[in-house]
Amino acid sequence: MADEIREGDYALLYLDDRRTYLVRAERGKVLHTHKGIVRFDDFIGREFGVRIKSSMGVEFIVFKPSIRDYVYKSLRGTQIIYPKDIALIILYGNIQPGSRVVEAGTGVGALTTVLASYVRPNGKVYSYEIRKEFLEIARKNLERAGLLEYVELKVKDITQGIDERDVDVVVLDMATPWLVIPHAYEALKGGGSFVSFSPTIDQVIKTVEELRAYGFAYVETVECLVRKIRVERGRTRPETLMTGHTGYITFARKALKEVFEPSNIPERSDV
Amino acid sequence: MADEIREGDYALLYLDDRRTYLVRAERGKVLHTHKGIVRFDDFIGREFGVRIKSSMGVEFIVFKPSIRDYVYKSLRGTQIIYPKDIALIILYGNIQPGSRVVEAGTGVGALTTVLASYVRPNGKVYSYEIRKEFLEIARKNLERAGLLEYVELKVKDITQGIDERDVDVVVLDMATPWLVIPHAYEALKGGGSFVSFSPTIDQVIKTVEELRAYGFAYVETVECLVRKIRVERGRTRPETLMTGHTGYITFARKALKEVFEPSNIPERSDV
Amino acid sequence: MADEIREGDYALLYLDDRRTYLVRAERGKVLHTHKGIVRFDDFIGREFGVRIKSSMGVEFIVFKPSIRDYVYKSLRGTQIIYPKDIALIILYGNIQPGSRVVEAGTGVGALTTVLASYVRPNGKVYSYEIRKEFLEIARKNLERAGLLEYVELKVKDITQGIDERDVDVVVLDMATPWLVIPHAYEALKGGGSFVSFSPTIDQVIKTVEELRAYGFAYVETVECLVRKIRVERGRTRPETLMTGHTGYITFARKALKEVFEPSNIPERSDV
Amino acid sequence: MADEIREGDYALLYLDDRRTYLVRAERGKVLHTHKGIVRFDDFIGREFGVRIKSSMGVEFIVFKPSIRDYVYKSLRGTQIIYPKDIALIILYGNIQPGSRVVEAGTGVGALTTVLASYVRPNGKVYSYEIRKEFLEIARKNLERAGLLEYVELKVKDITQGIDERDVDVVVLDMATPWLVIPHAYEALKGGGSFVSFSPTIDQVIKTVEELRAYGFAYVETVECLVRKIRVERGRTRPETLMTGHTGYITFARKALKEVFEPSNIPERSDV
Repeated sequence: MADEIREGDYALLYLDDRRTYLVRAERGKVLHTHKGIVRFDDFIGREFGVRIKSSMGVEFIVFKPSIRDYVYKSLRGTQIIYPKDIALIILYGNIQPGSRVVEAGTGVGALTTVLASYVRPNGKVYSYEIRKEFLEIARKNLERAGLLEYVELKVKDITQGIDERDVDVVVLDMATPWLVIPHAYEALKGGGSFVSFSPTIDQVIKTVEELRAYGFAYVETVECLVRKIRVERGRTRPETLMTGHTGYITFARKALKEVFEPSNIPERSDV
Repeated sequence: MADEIREGDYALLYLDDRRTYLVRAERGKVLHTHKGIVRFDDFIGREFGVRIKSSMGVEFIVFKPSIRDYVYKSLRGTQIIYPKDIALIILYGNIQPGSRVVEAGTGVGALTTVLASYVRPNGKVYSYEIRKEFLEIARKNLERAGLLEYVELKVKDITQGIDERDVDVVVLDMATPWLVIPHAYEALKGGGSFVSFSPTIDQVIKTVEELRAYGFAYVETVECLVRKIRVERGRTRPETLMTGHTGYITFARKALKEVFEPSNIPERSDV
Repeated sequence: MADEIREGDYALLYLDDRRTYLVRAERGKVLHTHKGIVRFDDFIGREFGVRIKSSMGVEFIVFKPSIRDYVYKSLRGTQIIYPKDIALIILYGNIQPGSRVVEAGTGVGALTTVLASYVRPNGKVYSYEIRKEFLEIARKNLERAGLLEYVELKVKDITQGIDERDVDVVVLDMATPWLVIPHAYEALKGGGSFVSFSPTIDQVIKTVEELRAYGFAYVETVECLVRKIRVERGRTRPETLMTGHTGYITFARKALKEVFEPSNIPERSDV
Repeated sequence: MADEIREGDYALLYLDDRRTYLVRAERGKVLHTHKGIVRFDDFIGREFGVRIKSSMGVEFIVFKPSIRDYVYKSLRGTQIIYPKDIALIILYGNIQPGSRVVEAGTGVGALTTVLASYVRPNGKVYSYEIRKEFLEIARKNLERAGLLEYVELKVKDITQGIDERDVDVVVLDMATPWLVIPHAYEALKGGGSFVSFSPTIDQVIKTVEELRAYGFAYVETVECLVRKIRVERGRTRPETLMTGHTGYITFARKALKEVFEPSNIPERSDV
């Protein structure tokens, strides 16, 4: 079924690859741009993907915001984790529909938004943040993306403990992830995933040492570089400027502490 | 609630970062390794994450397979798309719980497995493949991962057409993606996502040209490099060998063809 | 013997890693900066490496310009080839003290400067450029670096032919390198090196095809990424922004066309 | 003048990009390969770049070894520094014809060979190594490349001191470069270049800290990635496998310790 743009929906007005605007489709409202005025009545009731002209005759396309669009637009002057890193966190961290995920810190909710989106409809994200003012921004960003119901926002210092038990994943994007490792160990179910994002190599070293000390296994640290390619016949080339570093991502899985001896295995010759 | 390992479950026996074994937990069965015999009765009934010893006294950890583990283990001598690329496809391609996704070609089902996992529980993957023998392997891989019910496997040449309509995403990993673009355009709902993975730059150029000719917008091509870091205090360094190239990923969104003129906008002074 | 700064020498006034000034040490002259006035009399007669204070009490270090400094300072609003790429061109192109090198196009002489420096004292660079106004800038840049005598600047279209014969290396940094390949083949001595720098992959493909058609061997295309690391205990990390692409460099060696049959080799059993 | 292959010359027999053989052209000698016997008499007296056939009719090209060829062939089961890194060391380290360079450790002489080549004809490399057996290999490698006269090989522990004074560059490729920094400072002329290559980030941090403590300036650490491109119309793509890490290179320049106050500068209004 085609997606009709209804009043109250959020919409991404796309001018070109660098200029997009996230708006709420309300009757009578308009967006003022340097390329003219876009009148929301002109697209409400039409299908997403529609092309409309501004008052200056410039074409805009009205897209339904993707989850990545919500991430980019959650940025308000703060440093957010990049979509390339979020993508790895989701897949390598084994975040799945139905997962129960503990996250810290919430920040403006960029990563929270994606986590919430992928644990739907039966999972939950418990997101810790000590800076109350950030939680308010995060709440608005989650509400806008229609994902607030999948998140429990907590004004709490995660280095003091995690309330939840038997969670599937703990995801950290904070300055001192190593302080959370004992709590993460307690909160995770057996085999559960630990994920930590850190800009500096020093943070990584401390985190990995602590993970090993705590009996986590399958510890793996990666960095991810994404390069855009400008594709045009006769002039194809990677883009000149590129993000050379955002951070390192460390993954690990909780192993239980007790080691069981093998039961008696009769001698066999076919080994 | 902690995850108990029940008879019939799949389990990942972890020896170290390079040696893991995907097995089905059946009573009385064992795994023979060069580090001794692992008896499945020793872990059935325990919690995932448990450590058990082999007959040679070597420790194994029993993990619940993650979605990435299923991807790695779906490899049977064939070239599969890498998890790093799959991660970007999922997030940048806006594949969400509930999405209806068309995929080609299925291959051994590595990408299909992840797509199926993330569209759960209400979405569906329609996966096209012309090589029947591959579909059988894919079916087994999906069954093992418990995801077969979310996939419709189709023995069909996608360059001849797509049966579905109003789908959210079309994902291509095949030699001639540009031949599918007219069909993808028809199958996608307005604003829907197109994703194509190709090893060579020539494929990318043809695909991007055809996307532009067909009125797709927001066309973006990237390549993704993931580098592992060996973390050890006093000896931390990136790994020597690295995968330097797998392929380019192109993303685009379907824009509708008709362009609507602006409605009459009264002059305003507050612009 | 220590290097004394003599009147007439060029000197690099170093304020910090991002702010350096290339000046000619003349008595009575000063440099005005936002960090105060630096009086050249204060360092003339001292040793290179000396620290002096500006009128505002800010410290500057007076370095003898390195060859890389001359490259950076030859930039006058034009696109120059990056030092990282020049470095590979020099070594992989086998440019040596004594080499005879043909270059095109000269541009502002950035690459020419380095070529001239490394062929000293017995080699020569023959540098082709059709835009006369660039040659004048190049001449000044070479003069400043004290390298003009090792270069013959030629106002000539290299796609029309190369005057020199038996040269060691041909280096191209121009829009249509493939048009020069027949001339390069004639100009090079047997086994001589061909080098071409191109921003787009399309240029590379045409160039490599033409090289193969002309009987060049050992054809190799690379791209080079250099990433800066910000080193600070507790906060070490790669820099956020990075140059993601400058161009591809293609290397090849001239093989002669005639193929000689093997002379009669008696049977031997020790092969 | 074309290069004739004379008896006694070294020659690189090129079969394909992956298989080359460095041999000494001696009359009556042959090379046995799996592609047949190559008889040296068949190319002695011809021009470099010549194509000759083996006894099995397979074509070989006879190249004059480039400096990079000597580097690759100096490898005898030991870890050598990569040409990509050597290239940066030469240019960024400001190693020039005429430079006086101190190097440690010599190893098998791979880097030494390139240093010697570029300081010709008036410069000198003083190369320190404590493992006598390596010095012997290095001596042979340098002799083969015709560069021994530009090098003084020293069986000496550089962490105990450097004999030379007023050198232009100190280049280190050793486990504990930070121990050499006080000696490097004494040995270098004002403004001279310090270069250090290290595989681990921990070595880099110690080195950079010590450099700053010693008053070096313009300290810069980089890593260099070179990716090969497989160029073939219709199938162009980067190579799958790539060297993801070799080491970090740190550059710095010696600043003198004394700071000179500005002389009296009359007020001026044109600042």
